[in-house]
Amino acid sequence: MTDLAAPRSRPFVVGIIGGGQLARMMYTASVPLGVRVALLAEGPDVSAAGVVHDVTVGDYTDPATVQEFAARCDVLTFDHEHVPTALLQQLEAAGTAVRPGPAALVHAQDKVVMRQRLTAMGAPCPTHQVVPDAAALVAFADRTGWPVIAKTSRGGYDGKGVWKLDGPEDAPTPFADLAPGVQVIAEEFVDFRRELSALVVRSPSGQAVAYPVSESVQRDGICVETTTPAPGLTEEQSVTAQQLALRIAHELGVVGLLAVELMERADGSVVVNELAMRPHNTGHWSIHGAHTSQFDNHLRAVLDLPLGDPTTRAPWTVMANVLGGSVADLPSALLHCFARDRRIGVELYGKEVRPGRKVGHVTAFGDDLEATRKRARHAAAYLMGDPDA
Amino acid sequence: MTDLAAPRSRPFVVGIIGGGQLARMMYTASVPLGVRVALLAEGPDVSAAGVVHDVTVGDYTDPATVQEFAARCDVLTFDHEHVPTALLQQLEAAGTAVRPGPAALVHAQDKVVMRQRLTAMGAPCPTHQVVPDAAALVAFADRTGWPVIAKTSRGGYDGKGVWKLDGPEDAPTPFADLAPGVQVIAEEFVDFRRELSALVVRSPSGQAVAYPVSESVQRDGICVETTTPAPGLTEEQSVTAQQLALRIAHELGVVGLLAVELMERADGSVVVNELAMRPHNTGHWSIHGAHTSQFDNHLRAVLDLPLGDPTTRAPWTVMANVLGGSVADLPSALLHCFARDRRIGVELYGKEVRPGRKVGHVTAFGDDLEATRKRARHAAAYLMGDPDA
Repeated sequence: MTDLAAPRSRPFVVGIIGGGQLARMMYTASVPLGVRVALLAEGPDVSAAGVVHDVTVGDYTDPATVQEFAARCDVLTFDHEHVPTALLQQLEAAGTAVRPGPAALVHAQDKVVMRQRLTAMGAPCPTHQVVPDAAALVAFADRTGWPVIAKTSRGGYDGKGVWKLDGPEDAPTPFADLAPGVQVIAEEFVDFRRELSALVVRSPSGQAVAYPVSESVQRDGICVETTTPAPGLTEEQSVTAQQLALRIAHELGVVGLLAVELMERADGSVVVNELAMRPHNTGHWSIHGAHTSQFDNHLRAVLDLPLGDPTTRAPWTVMANVLGGSVADLPSALLHCFARDRRIGVELYGKEVRPGRKVGHVTAFGDDLEATRKRARHAAAYLMGDPDA
Repeated sequence: MTDLAAPRSRPFVVGIIGGGQLARMMYTASVPLGVRVALLAEGPDVSAAGVVHDVTVGDYTDPATVQEFAARCDVLTFDHEHVPTALLQQLEAAGTAVRPGPAALVHAQDKVVMRQRLTAMGAPCPTHQVVPDAAALVAFADRTGWPVIAKTSRGGYDGKGVWKLDGPEDAPTPFADLAPGVQVIAEEFVDFRRELSALVVRSPSGQAVAYPVSESVQRDGICVETTTPAPGLTEEQSVTAQQLALRIAHELGVVGLLAVELMERADGSVVVNELAMRPHNTGHWSIHGAHTSQFDNHLRAVLDLPLGDPTTRAPWTVMANVLGGSVADLPSALLHCFARDRRIGVELYGKEVRPGRKVGHVTAFGDDLEATRKRARHAAAYLMGDPDA
C-alpha cells in the first residue's frame, strides 16, 4: 500500500469528485477505515454535501477548481464519469493518483471508445457502427433491421442520450441538439431476455474480486430492482460473466469498481451493454447482502488495500430503488416501513423529492426469493407513495 | 413518530452531545436514515468531529453553550453521560426532547442513585452502602469481608473512580481528591465467574428490543473482548438477563440504548454492576453481527421510529477492542489485517494513538467459536503492534 505507508506531514486524504448518493455511501464506508475524505461537490445541497465533513463546492469541469482540490488530496476517485478526460490526464501527468485513471475511465465516458476497445479484445458486443448522419443510420438499419438503438458517445445517463428508433422516420432524432465533438453510435437492437450486471473491483496491484452476478430490472432507462444472485443463472453462465468483467477490468487497467451491464439473449449468451467505473446502482444490495460492500471494496482499491470478500451473506438479496413519488418527507415515512418489516434495510439519500428521481433504495435478504422480493417491493412502493403495493 | 411528522420550516435535526467514537458510529448509522445530525464536540480533534458535517465545538457543561446548541435541534442524545443532570432538567422543562431524559439518565450518572433505585425495584445488586469516610468503609468491610469495591458516585469511566481495596490500610484511598458533592459507595466484592452484558433499546412509545446477551472480558477496567451470544449461557439465564434489562429500561423510562453490565456468580446467578444509557462498547459487535446495529436502533428510539431486529446474523460474533499500542498509523496497518482475513470487520475511530486508549475495534463472525475468536484476537493484536499474536 504505497500511498498510505509513505511518510507525510498530514493525514492521508481521499478526494471524491461529485457529490451524489454514490459519494454519500462511499463516505459512510470510509469512516470505519479511519481515512480522511474531501469532497468536491457540484453544489451545497447535493446528496453527499450534507453529510461529508470536508466539502468544497465547485465546478468539476473547471481545471483550476479541480487542480486546487487535487492538491489537497493523496488520491482522487469519482461519484460519476463526467470529469473531462483531458483534465484527468493533466492531473495524472502532474503526479496525482487518479483512480480509476483516465486511460481506463475514458471507456466509461465515451461509448465509441468503449465499443471499439471491447470489440478489439473480443468481448461480446451488439453489432454497432459510428454513424455521421441520419442516412448512415438508415443504411446501418438496412443491415441489422429495425428497431435500432442509437446512443450519443458522451453525456448520457439513466436513459438520457439513448433512443430506440423504430424506423427511418426516427433516424434524425439522435442528431438533433448534438453537442460539439459528440458522435452517434448505432447498435443492433438486442431483444434481451433480461439484464444482468457483473461487478468486479480491481486494485492498482492487480488483485481483483468479482461479486455474484445480479439480475437488474430497468424501467424507462432507470434501474428499479436487482436480485442477487441472478435467479436461474447456471454456474457456467455466472463464471463466464464474472470472467468477462475481470478480463475487461484487467485489459483496461481499471482501479476500483467496474460494472459491466450485460444483456442476456434468449439462448443464455450475453453481450455488453454499458460499462461504469464507480460504485453502481446494481451493487447497492452489497451493503446489507455481501460480506464486503461495493463501497468498501471500491475504497480499498483506491487505497491499494487488500480487497474484502464479495460473496453473499444470505441466499437472496433484493434491492429496490425508491424513485421520487408523492411522499416528500421520506424520514417520516420510515415509520410504516420499519413497523411492517423489522429487517428491511433502507438507505435515504437526503435529496429533495422530485418525480422519478432516485432518492433512496431498500434492501431485503432472506432464504425465499419471492418473499424477499415482496418485502423489498412493498417497502419501496410505500416510500414512493403507493401504500397498497 | 410525533416529532418527525410535525410540520416544520427546516429539516429535522438530531443533536448529539459528545464527540467520541460512539457519536462517530451513531453518525454513520444516521446517514441512511436521511435525518440531519448536529454535533456538540469537546474539541475540534475528537473522534466524531472529524467526520460529522455540522460540528459545534463547545463545553457541554456550560449552560449557554448547550442551550444554544439545543435550540437548533429537535431532539438531543448523547455520546456520554457527563452532561450535568440539572442542565438537562432545565432543557427538558423548556420543552426540548432529551433522549434519554434526565430522570432516566441520572441512574447512569450517579451510582448511588442507581443502587438505591435498583434495590427498591428488587433488581439483584451486590451488598452496598454509601460511606462518608474511611472508618465507615472499614465498618462495611467488617460485615462483608475484604476485599471491598469502592466507587465514586459520579465521574468514573473505564475503570477510573473504581478501586478494589484489600484491607483497612486501603480504606482512605477513595476519599482522597473527592470532588465536591461526590459520594463514595462501598460494594461487596463479587468474585464473579465472568461479566455479561444485556443490551436493550426502548422507544418513547415503550416499544423495546433486547439484544442477545454478550460475554465481555475486561482488563484494567477496560473492555477488551466480547462474544455474542455468551457461550454456555442457558436459554433460561439468557431470558432472565434480558428481562431484567427490559424491566430496568421500563421502570427508569429509558429512551435509547440501555446497557446493563452484569456479573455472573459461580452459581449462574447475576448481579448488576453498572448501567449505561448510550450505545455501549459491548454492543459494537452488532454493526456486523446483528440485523440492526445498536447505533441504528438507538437512533430509531431517539426518533421514535419502530425498532429493528436485534438478533444475530451469524452463530458467533466476537469483537476485540484495539487499544493504542506501538502502531501509530492504523489505516496503513489495515494492509496486513485485510490480506490475512477477507471477512474481518475493522472500525477505526480516527483518534490519535496513545497507550491503552480505545482507538478502534475489530469484529469477526462465523460458525466456529474458537476460530472466530482467533481471527478477532489476531487482527486486534496486529493493530496494537503485536504481529505474532
